[in-house]
Amino acid sequence: MVFIKEYSFVGGKDSMQKITNEVNKAIFDSGIENGIVVIEAPHSTTGILKVASCGEEVLADIVKEMRRIVPARINYLHQESPENAAGHIKSSLFGSSVSLILREGKLYCEEEQDIYFADYDGPRKRVFSVCVVGD
Amino acid sequence: MVFIKEYSFVGGKDSMQKITNEVNKAIFDSGIENGIVVIEAPHSTTGILKVASCGEEVLADIVKEMRRIVPARINYLHQESPENAAGHIKSSLFGSSVSLILREGKLYCEEEQDIYFADYDGPRKRVFSVCVVGD
Amino acid sequence: MVFIKEYSFVGGKDSMQKITNEVNKAIFDSGIENGIVVIEAPHSTTGILKVASCGEEVLADIVKEMRRIVPARINYLHQESPENAAGHIKSSLFGSSVSLILREGKLYCEEEQDIYFADYDGPRKRVFSVCVVGD
Repeated sequence: MVFIKEYSFVGGKDSMQKITNEVNKAIFDSGIENGIVVIEAPHSTTGILKVASCGEEVLADIVKEMRRIVPARINYLHQESPENAAGHIKSSLFGSSVSLILREGKLYCEEEQDIYFADYDGPRKRVFSVCVVGD
Repeated sequence: MVFIKEYSFVGGKDSMQKITNEVNKAIFDSGIENGIVVIEAPHSTTGILKVASCGEEVLADIVKEMRRIVPARINYLHQESPENAAGHIKSSLFGSSVSLILREGKLYCEEEQDIYFADYDGPRKRVFSVCVVGD
Repeated sequence: MVFIKEYSFVGGKDSMQKITNEVNKAIFDSGIENGIVVIEAPHSTTGILKVASCGEEVLADIVKEMRRIVPARINYLHQESPENAAGHIKSSLFGSSVSLILREGKLYCEEEQDIYFADYDGPRKRVFSVCVVGD
């Protein structure tokens, strides 16, 4: 069985937005109990991340480290903006889709982790989809 | 339903080859309309990346940034060659498989993105496979 | 068809543990021949990596490069420990789940690669699951 649901929203500038509730709603609506959940952002300066649900500090560290490892700067060939050029690299490095295990109606990682939509550029209209495949 | 198709080719040295057409052909041949597409390179110095289809500059930036973040150099323990040793790290960092959503017969990301096979070493014979699972 | 199997163990400190045998056992037990295998660690300072099976040097290089790119240090906001804070970043960078292709009863990558469970913190009790979806 396959179930796909798309969500849209306007993200912030270089922001991380928690989307665990949206993912869980898609899982619930699918009626699927066991299988695989793929969450994908179809943009090139965004990402989908699975991160500890232990607090704001970890999230802030990740954003800061992303900026340290891939700084927004003027010497990219792509000249839309330093943030946009860096965002393309961050998207490749941190990934723009994740595959998760669905077990007995719940995300396998739900006790320790949340799912985040990272917008490395923005703010602009963004979308992501949740695809559930299983029984 | 499951459909798997393998492609082989000889890549360039530290190159990025667009494989969107091959992925789309596998999807078409599968007859599957909705589900998940996994694209995987079974090598250790290659990668599969989902990248903006907005032009050559972004692609060149990614290759350059990969080299900046993981330089080919002589102080790796693995001594096959600096490029090969760095390629193993790049493959782990940027990933050698991706999971994408297939919706109504098309890649969910097709409007903004292309799929690339990155060869961090080469040139040598390389393969990758496209697996489509769904209805 | 869907098959899920969980494994638990106590990992080492900042260690890489080969789990290819566990993955292959789950595949065998599933009876599934073709499809997708998702391997996921539900923790935030661990990762799942697909790495060359060509020897210990590559593995040691990867661990060393992870520490170079994301050093354990005291200026993270998350203050549990430098290793733990760095581990959260490594987990996001290198990923904590992978999607692999299963073809004719075998991992598509089995000739050249092994699957590893990376523990960036530890030692503590850890788990991971293997989910096989296909025919």
